[in-house]
Amino acid sequence: MTLNHKAPAVVLLSGGVDSATVMAIALKQGFAPYAMSFRYGQRHAIELDAARQVAQHLGVVGHTIVDIDLRAFGGSSLTSDEAVPKGRTLDEMAAGVPSTYVPARNTIFLSYALAWAEVLGAQDIFIGVNALDNAGYPDCRPEYIHAYEQMANLATRLGTEGKQPLRIHTPLIQMTKVQIIQTGLDLNVDYSLTSTCYDPEPDGTACGLCDACHLRRQAFTELGLVDPKPYRA
Amino acid sequence: MTLNHKAPAVVLLSGGVDSATVMAIALKQGFAPYAMSFRYGQRHAIELDAARQVAQHLGVVGHTIVDIDLRAFGGSSLTSDEAVPKGRTLDEMAAGVPSTYVPARNTIFLSYALAWAEVLGAQDIFIGVNALDNAGYPDCRPEYIHAYEQMANLATRLGTEGKQPLRIHTPLIQMTKVQIIQTGLDLNVDYSLTSTCYDPEPDGTACGLCDACHLRRQAFTELGLVDPKPYRA
Repeated sequence: MTLNHKAPAVVLLSGGVDSATVMAIALKQGFAPYAMSFRYGQRHAIELDAARQVAQHLGVVGHTIVDIDLRAFGGSSLTSDEAVPKGRTLDEMAAGVPSTYVPARNTIFLSYALAWAEVLGAQDIFIGVNALDNAGYPDCRPEYIHAYEQMANLATRLGTEGKQPLRIHTPLIQMTKVQIIQTGLDLNVDYSLTSTCYDPEPDGTACGLCDACHLRRQAFTELGLVDPKPYRA
Repeated sequence: MTLNHKAPAVVLLSGGVDSATVMAIALKQGFAPYAMSFRYGQRHAIELDAARQVAQHLGVVGHTIVDIDLRAFGGSSLTSDEAVPKGRTLDEMAAGVPSTYVPARNTIFLSYALAWAEVLGAQDIFIGVNALDNAGYPDCRPEYIHAYEQMANLATRLGTEGKQPLRIHTPLIQMTKVQIIQTGLDLNVDYSLTSTCYDPEPDGTACGLCDACHLRRQAFTELGLVDPKPYRA
């Protein structure tokens, strides 16, 4: 009899469609996932309830929610009282860095994941970045992730010991939203538990008009499926 | 008449000898410095009082103290109840990563500095890492800093606009502690305001025996100077 020791992995889990799908992929690949979420001053902090439910439903080994204050810096409509853009077309979304970009957010998130990975002895970090839907976000691009991985491999004890390199897994990076949802459905992700909207009602009802709602709804429609989340508009 | 608009720079300021010297260098180089310090669960949080005094004495444009909880992860004697090593020789200090190493700490600090720099429109970040005294710390090595800079230049809006690159300045990286203190004294740094000890008394008195105290005291002795800080032992 062989004991099956699964390798630990840190999985960034916002509670949205993408990160829930990434969590299911990490499990499918045989990792023992440790979910990491952030209360960072986002107006849509209700996504953390979704993260808890997704983590529980899929079955993670551990889940930590880290408190950080990105409102202290400002610079984003997601962490200020500035209005979130509504009703934009895909072309408008693709034109430049949107106001919903949070300065250096993925860099900060990955840095906490790196710290936790080092303490856990994990060499694998999963993040649900996507280059197609987020063309305007600098920290969703493959070249950024590659550079982060290079840096991470020099940043920790492992980097001084010539050990196997640390890997930043981005299984969704070249997928369309349709492909992401199809992948998740095949892995039994329950998307009714996820929260996508940038500007939800207090009870979690999605606005239906922000960029994130737009992309999500369109993908469910293309799949000929009914999105299980309620929308205001 | 030409108005002299100084370029903003984010300067990581712990309140110790190295970061105080870096702040004086950034000022000397003509930057408008924004000091950034962290309350991260360190046992020597009294260094934040020193950071405030150093920032005020040298004259910074702004100073933010960010609350982050690195105790949540553990993995270091600086952020847990594990004893800090005392009375070690230089050879002992150079042998491997010490227990006072905090997992991914500089990566997390630099990531917050990157976020603030982006919001300020700053392209310059200063950090007082030193490769000689901290041979055991992976995130004090030149190759790590170089990789971080590469990543940072892809991580933000600037990275998508082909603008001038962001620079991580490490003016102390190849200096001895003697050279650092000599440089700071030439720039009017008041080292009586700084706090170096990993395990100080509540009133700020340094232990005199931890690695950080050892390196500091030895440097003042080599310079033939009296260290203006009080020591317990």
